[in-house]
Amino acid sequence: MQPDIEIARAASTIPVLEIGARLGIPAAEMIPYGHDKAKIRLDYLHSLADRPQGKLVLVTAMSPTPAGEGKTTVAIGLADALNRVGHNASVCLREPSLGPCFGLKGGAAGGGYAQVVPMEDINLHFTGDMHAIGAAHNLLAAMIDNYVHWGNEIRIDLRKVTWRRVVDINDRQLRQIVTGVGGPANGYPMEGGFDITVASEVMAIFCLSRSLAELQQRLGRIVIGYTRGGEPVTAEQVQAAGAMTALLKDALAPNLAQTLENNPAFIHGGPFANIAHGCNSVIATEAALRLSDIVVTEAGFGADLGAEKFFDIKCRKSGLRPDAAVIVATVRALKMHGGVPRGELEAENVAAVEEGLANLGRHIRNIGQYGVPAVVALNHFDSDTDAEIQAVREYTARSGVDTQVCRYWAQGSAGGEELAHAVAALASSGAAQFRTLYDDAQPLWDKARTIARSIYGADDIAADQKIRDRFRQYEAEGYGHFPICMAKTQYSFSTDPQLLGAPDKHTVVIRDLALAAGAEFLVAICGDIMRMPGLPRKPAANGIFVNAQGQIEGLF
Amino acid sequence: MQPDIEIARAASTIPVLEIGARLGIPAAEMIPYGHDKAKIRLDYLHSLADRPQGKLVLVTAMSPTPAGEGKTTVAIGLADALNRVGHNASVCLREPSLGPCFGLKGGAAGGGYAQVVPMEDINLHFTGDMHAIGAAHNLLAAMIDNYVHWGNEIRIDLRKVTWRRVVDINDRQLRQIVTGVGGPANGYPMEGGFDITVASEVMAIFCLSRSLAELQQRLGRIVIGYTRGGEPVTAEQVQAAGAMTALLKDALAPNLAQTLENNPAFIHGGPFANIAHGCNSVIATEAALRLSDIVVTEAGFGADLGAEKFFDIKCRKSGLRPDAAVIVATVRALKMHGGVPRGELEAENVAAVEEGLANLGRHIRNIGQYGVPAVVALNHFDSDTDAEIQAVREYTARSGVDTQVCRYWAQGSAGGEELAHAVAALASSGAAQFRTLYDDAQPLWDKARTIARSIYGADDIAADQKIRDRFRQYEAEGYGHFPICMAKTQYSFSTDPQLLGAPDKHTVVIRDLALAAGAEFLVAICGDIMRMPGLPRKPAANGIFVNAQGQIEGLF
Repeated sequence: MQPDIEIARAASTIPVLEIGARLGIPAAEMIPYGHDKAKIRLDYLHSLADRPQGKLVLVTAMSPTPAGEGKTTVAIGLADALNRVGHNASVCLREPSLGPCFGLKGGAAGGGYAQVVPMEDINLHFTGDMHAIGAAHNLLAAMIDNYVHWGNEIRIDLRKVTWRRVVDINDRQLRQIVTGVGGPANGYPMEGGFDITVASEVMAIFCLSRSLAELQQRLGRIVIGYTRGGEPVTAEQVQAAGAMTALLKDALAPNLAQTLENNPAFIHGGPFANIAHGCNSVIATEAALRLSDIVVTEAGFGADLGAEKFFDIKCRKSGLRPDAAVIVATVRALKMHGGVPRGELEAENVAAVEEGLANLGRHIRNIGQYGVPAVVALNHFDSDTDAEIQAVREYTARSGVDTQVCRYWAQGSAGGEELAHAVAALASSGAAQFRTLYDDAQPLWDKARTIARSIYGADDIAADQKIRDRFRQYEAEGYGHFPICMAKTQYSFSTDPQLLGAPDKHTVVIRDLALAAGAEFLVAICGDIMRMPGLPRKPAANGIFVNAQGQIEGLF
Repeated sequence: MQPDIEIARAASTIPVLEIGARLGIPAAEMIPYGHDKAKIRLDYLHSLADRPQGKLVLVTAMSPTPAGEGKTTVAIGLADALNRVGHNASVCLREPSLGPCFGLKGGAAGGGYAQVVPMEDINLHFTGDMHAIGAAHNLLAAMIDNYVHWGNEIRIDLRKVTWRRVVDINDRQLRQIVTGVGGPANGYPMEGGFDITVASEVMAIFCLSRSLAELQQRLGRIVIGYTRGGEPVTAEQVQAAGAMTALLKDALAPNLAQTLENNPAFIHGGPFANIAHGCNSVIATEAALRLSDIVVTEAGFGADLGAEKFFDIKCRKSGLRPDAAVIVATVRALKMHGGVPRGELEAENVAAVEEGLANLGRHIRNIGQYGVPAVVALNHFDSDTDAEIQAVREYTARSGVDTQVCRYWAQGSAGGEELAHAVAALASSGAAQFRTLYDDAQPLWDKARTIARSIYGADDIAADQKIRDRFRQYEAEGYGHFPICMAKTQYSFSTDPQLLGAPDKHTVVIRDLALAAGAEFLVAICGDIMRMPGLPRKPAANGIFVNAQGQIEGLF
């Protein structure tokens, strides 16, 4: 097969205004960014509020392995296949970060014959949303320090400023820094650091806001640190929320692009899936639901993290009600969860697949707890054997869940009509009885314990007294109704990335608790969570360049 | 008069594709960003290489005062007036930085009835060029530190990494920082800091490159620091130039917008006018010259800095040959240069005007040294009296230079037809015999001295032995043919911002010398030059917000 970038470049795209027209969007309601990207005006979207919504399908996955299970590829291919079999389907995806693109992972616009295009644009600056979010975040940081510099009337404690800065580059050197060095003209010396832009609370807020007014209010509620007296200080108190919103005004309008098969792709917002909720924007998902019969969307990492947050944060906060879930699995990942090392995944090993199915099984059970019917999409690799696939089918059938093999990467929509039919049937079956896992009114500690027990299969959660006190403190400060956003490794149900399969009898230790007052959740940090990745020894950037024809080479 | 933003919002703009069509650009050769901004494809521009060029008019100014002389406003109004009187004129401007917009200065898109629109977009993210430049700059920084982290085979000296980072926010807290704190996983502890994005050498390179290939080569030649053995290390050696170019690929295509009177405005690139050359991109100026009969462009600060660099760096490097210059003056600035304090500028004071004319006179003489004919544009304020204006007319007439009053801010193009006629006549007179001030082959020290003596009226330049050695060192390293980019205060011909008028017998002390190997100039730093501004006590950002109609308020 050709490399992704070659396939993407050879795609016969149609003007994005035509993609919009097929959805019924008048040309005047779209803001073109070139001929193949557009934003949809917010006023127009607000005018659709009374329209019925289409069916919402979440694509999630078993616990991922470093090899990658192709969740985005399946989401894109499924949307194409749904269109192929006669539905009006759209796909809703996150915007990729520049960081991984120049690091190890490459782009994040699907792969093979299931991609969204223009691939280079989507992976690089796209319509500028990521830059706008970074600018808004860093403007707040500058305004905090400027407030302190000029007088600090409310006595912000320099040791307790929690608002860091962001950059959309993998830059380990900036993780922990000392700022304000060099004398009084440069501010006060303080500890600080940079996260990658997708880890910004501004990104999380952006993805949960349904209007500019809501965005401005939420930004104003961000807690940036504490006073000498221990009182929380908000972005509104340093008068930053309005200017931040001005920077985000254009960005909040959702982006429209297309799949290789010229079907609509809404690509908007992309928060981290560990310290944030890991789904594309509510505003884009709602837009797609008003404009399509079926909307396929995805959430970060495996279902224990991505789906849990999609349901318990995004759907809870937005009122979205999913109609079906697709759990992506691969034979290779099942083998790894069954104990096969990474180098030996090509050889047939039905026993290992059977052993690894416990991981998939728990994800299936978990989705069921939300009242959402599921189907397993087995993303096909050439080395998969019939016996291995049969083992998966038999196992999931015992849970009453269908398994469909799909080959979207190699074949585009033709590689999985059966999955499309199955998903469409499930979504329109009326079987969904969506419920969140816990109620707003539950104590914060109980919410975290519910997630750990019901989703991770843990016996209990644990934390130092200092952290347990923080749970109580946040309740006292009025944040007790917030959901919990768990930040843990994506590789295991437990907090130990080596513990594959479906571990039980483990304890989830909460190491830290962080407030996202604007995004309206509390982040329970379990284990080491990277907010700023580093570049690898040989970063992808080393091989990227512009050729004599003015085309980008080396992006993958 | 209404505030600028109200005037801009009430403007009846026409689709930017129509603006392009009037220039003869086929719609397919433009990349729309919304309906009122577009980029012009590089391939199309390269196809125009054999076309004749229009006349090139530089708008520069007398030494500026904190009140502002309205150079951008005059440039825009002049282009409108040239169109009004029958010419096909375009204006070429720099892209504004976000920093000042949220700080003290407000936007930089002209003012009153001489503005470029869409004003909010141009002042905020525009087409994303500034963000792309920042990302390219910071990717290089991350790749340098990553190279060091993983092995540092060429033994880059951690103490001698000269490449800093950038952010497009006024953030004094980041001027001087310590990075890599927190242990080996976070890199090596190093000194570092952030400049504002417009101060980046990437910006200077961007504005001097005529193709993606040239851009990639120049980026590769950036010197980022030195090895333990004292050898310069380039961006190419850490394999960063290709990925940086990929990030800049779309940005390099020049942007087209419009004036309030629907005339074409090329707004592209915006390097600092102190540590860089302070003009819009060569690629945009050349595009405008191939597509218009007359092109009005501006350069930063007064003529001693802006025009000198426009001629000695931009024109030298690009082969552009200016046909005329417009020197913007105001009665108020003349009074300040004549000794009147800022609070007393309203009262008539012909004697002070006459005293201050020495400043304007030296700028007139300076422009003459480049063989470029000039006209003085007296930007009119309500408090100006006939006697004051008459004093200016008489003084400049003695140098053989015409003075024309213009009222573009208050009246748009109707406020200065005479100036338009005078400029058009001068530009087409054939009087221009453009020459640079010094030759490439002159020793570096002599180049700096030539600028100081011929332009600043200084007796001589001076520097510590250490700095004088650096002049020789750069010559030995093969940079002797570079022009000198002087970084000094814009408020005085001397290096003392308090020394107004036309000081002579002063000495220009060069405090530091910095290499811009990719941009191909050496920066001679005289006095304190701010590469990262701070926010004022009450930043403009405090008053900016998005109103209930979704419009930005408080931007000015």
